[in-house]
Amino acid sequence: MTVPSGVDTPAVLVDLDVLDRNITRMAEIAKAKGLALRPHAKTHKIPEIAARQLAAGAAGLTVATIGEAEVFAAAGVADLFIAYPLWLSPAKALRLAALTEKAAVTAGVDSAEGAARLGACLGPAAARVGVLVEIDSGHHRSGVAPEAAATVAQAAAGAGLKVAGVFTFPGHSYAPGMPVEAAWQEQDALSRAAGSLAAAGFEAPVRSGGSTPTALLTEGSAATEMRPGVYVFGDAQQWELGRCAPTDIALTVAATVVSRHAPAAGSPSRFILDAGSKILGSDRPAWASGFGRLLDHPDARIAALSEHHATIEWPGPGPMPRVGERLRVVPNHVCLAVNLVDDVAVVSGGELLDRWMVAARGRNH
Amino acid sequence: MTVPSGVDTPAVLVDLDVLDRNITRMAEIAKAKGLALRPHAKTHKIPEIAARQLAAGAAGLTVATIGEAEVFAAAGVADLFIAYPLWLSPAKALRLAALTEKAAVTAGVDSAEGAARLGACLGPAAARVGVLVEIDSGHHRSGVAPEAAATVAQAAAGAGLKVAGVFTFPGHSYAPGMPVEAAWQEQDALSRAAGSLAAAGFEAPVRSGGSTPTALLTEGSAATEMRPGVYVFGDAQQWELGRCAPTDIALTVAATVVSRHAPAAGSPSRFILDAGSKILGSDRPAWASGFGRLLDHPDARIAALSEHHATIEWPGPGPMPRVGERLRVVPNHVCLAVNLVDDVAVVSGGELLDRWMVAARGRNH
Repeated sequence: MTVPSGVDTPAVLVDLDVLDRNITRMAEIAKAKGLALRPHAKTHKIPEIAARQLAAGAAGLTVATIGEAEVFAAAGVADLFIAYPLWLSPAKALRLAALTEKAAVTAGVDSAEGAARLGACLGPAAARVGVLVEIDSGHHRSGVAPEAAATVAQAAAGAGLKVAGVFTFPGHSYAPGMPVEAAWQEQDALSRAAGSLAAAGFEAPVRSGGSTPTALLTEGSAATEMRPGVYVFGDAQQWELGRCAPTDIALTVAATVVSRHAPAAGSPSRFILDAGSKILGSDRPAWASGFGRLLDHPDARIAALSEHHATIEWPGPGPMPRVGERLRVVPNHVCLAVNLVDDVAVVSGGELLDRWMVAARGRNH
Repeated sequence: MTVPSGVDTPAVLVDLDVLDRNITRMAEIAKAKGLALRPHAKTHKIPEIAARQLAAGAAGLTVATIGEAEVFAAAGVADLFIAYPLWLSPAKALRLAALTEKAAVTAGVDSAEGAARLGACLGPAAARVGVLVEIDSGHHRSGVAPEAAATVAQAAAGAGLKVAGVFTFPGHSYAPGMPVEAAWQEQDALSRAAGSLAAAGFEAPVRSGGSTPTALLTEGSAATEMRPGVYVFGDAQQWELGRCAPTDIALTVAATVVSRHAPAAGSPSRFILDAGSKILGSDRPAWASGFGRLLDHPDARIAALSEHHATIEWPGPGPMPRVGERLRVVPNHVCLAVNLVDDVAVVSGGELLDRWMVAARGRNH
């Protein structure tokens, strides 16, 4: 596909056909597994995409912040889970209480102190907020040990909050060879945490897991719900992890070759694109082959990234692109790329169809 | 300094006293060297800061994109250099031509093709656009070899553009031990490029160099102007390169401890802040000690960064911060952090004074 002529570079393109296929496929996978699908909307931050996910059967949305929840509630989303161990300031408490007037709201907690503060700051609104206790399933970021889930749940219940269950994010699945092990640890942690709650007398109907790398492996025996995010677009990380094919990638950054010079002696041929870290983001895990990929030139490598320059090393085959040619770049981590632009160009079959605002861009608080 | 109570986290704070000191100091350095100072505004994207730089004696501003130039021209900045090898689309040509009605505009070129296209797309407006030929002084990104400057200048003159001189960005200065060598290469490249132009009959009054790491080393014998950007704020990269002290850092990200758990056996103590890659940016050069620093706890390390979580390893001294405490994080690369937020909180002596819009946020095209 060439970049539509109505699009100037650099710009984010969303291929509508690939997007819809990804949305439908994940909905079918969740249904076949008997799991509720609650996609993470931090990946796209776009109400039009949320509407498509819900129309395909999603039970609600996951978000990372109160700010994202406000945007999606205003767009009519009725059921929102803020998958984060919130520590409420007075301002955040007012915002969260207001949010409960517009949508069913569930929040994360991972400490007795956090749960107590959540309840105290919300006051009467606490009764309208469900909580899921966050469990560490091996990523070692936030979350309590599975056996400690009951302690946090008791603090939450004592603070007037509704304990709805547990959740975990197996973020350590984002590495080569890790998805299977991480998915097993995820299920094990959810089972043990549910056991901890049951022993303390909590029903905990929700056991929420899932990342895009583990989504296909999540089993209904332990989990009741999954929260993949990146699957809607795909990205270079998922491509290199083997969790999506290049044909599954719905989001690219259109870029123009702006500079091309003879390399230093012994160096590979290279050229410069006008897409840098201010549109691609600069996540680069140690196992990644570069700072992103070229969708139509899988052997090329993004060897360096500045704010407005990507340095492409070109091994062939075929002639190196000329100055002025336009290419499609796949960001390493699509959630960061979306958060850098105010809108995306929606394309189908090489034609520009529409522009969607990234309504929750920057709503990271 | 504590985080002012009117600021919710995560949020960007700018310390006005440190900012003004940094602006004054660089202006004095440039004056003492007899160099024009043309600060790179991609670092801040904020008209109020541009106004302070100009009031302190800056000759004009440097920007990276036509979009940034549009914002600063609308704010009244009269002299703008777009330090990028522009490849004009029809839409960009219209925007650049319109810009020349509002401000004196100079653009970068680094190829005969780019220069020819610039002239052809601009038509009669070409006569109002100055160009500086970009030179590669060792960073090996964009830019021609110094000896090839005349070839590009001839193409530009042939296309009806005013050749004003040469510029380079010694980006390879961003590594330990490199600033002195990079500054020498910068001067050598500017001298050779000026020689190339002179031999072809071009006057080339502008020889523009400079990055924050090399600014103190740039000498007037080769350069006539310098374009540092990061100096206004400082960041963790400059701190770790020894190019600024922690007391010179004007921009921090206020963050709250949201999670704190006992570490795995043998692991360091750690806690989680609510500032991740969506407000800090995720640049992390191989030589950096982590994904940013804590301004008031220089021995702590940001060992991991997700979109909304920073994992802090805490070696002491002193008790580890409790859940709910608020700390100040120094981003690794401040230009990326500013581009992630819609506004910054301006503080002085721990008091919230004002909020400035990041007017050119996202104007990266």
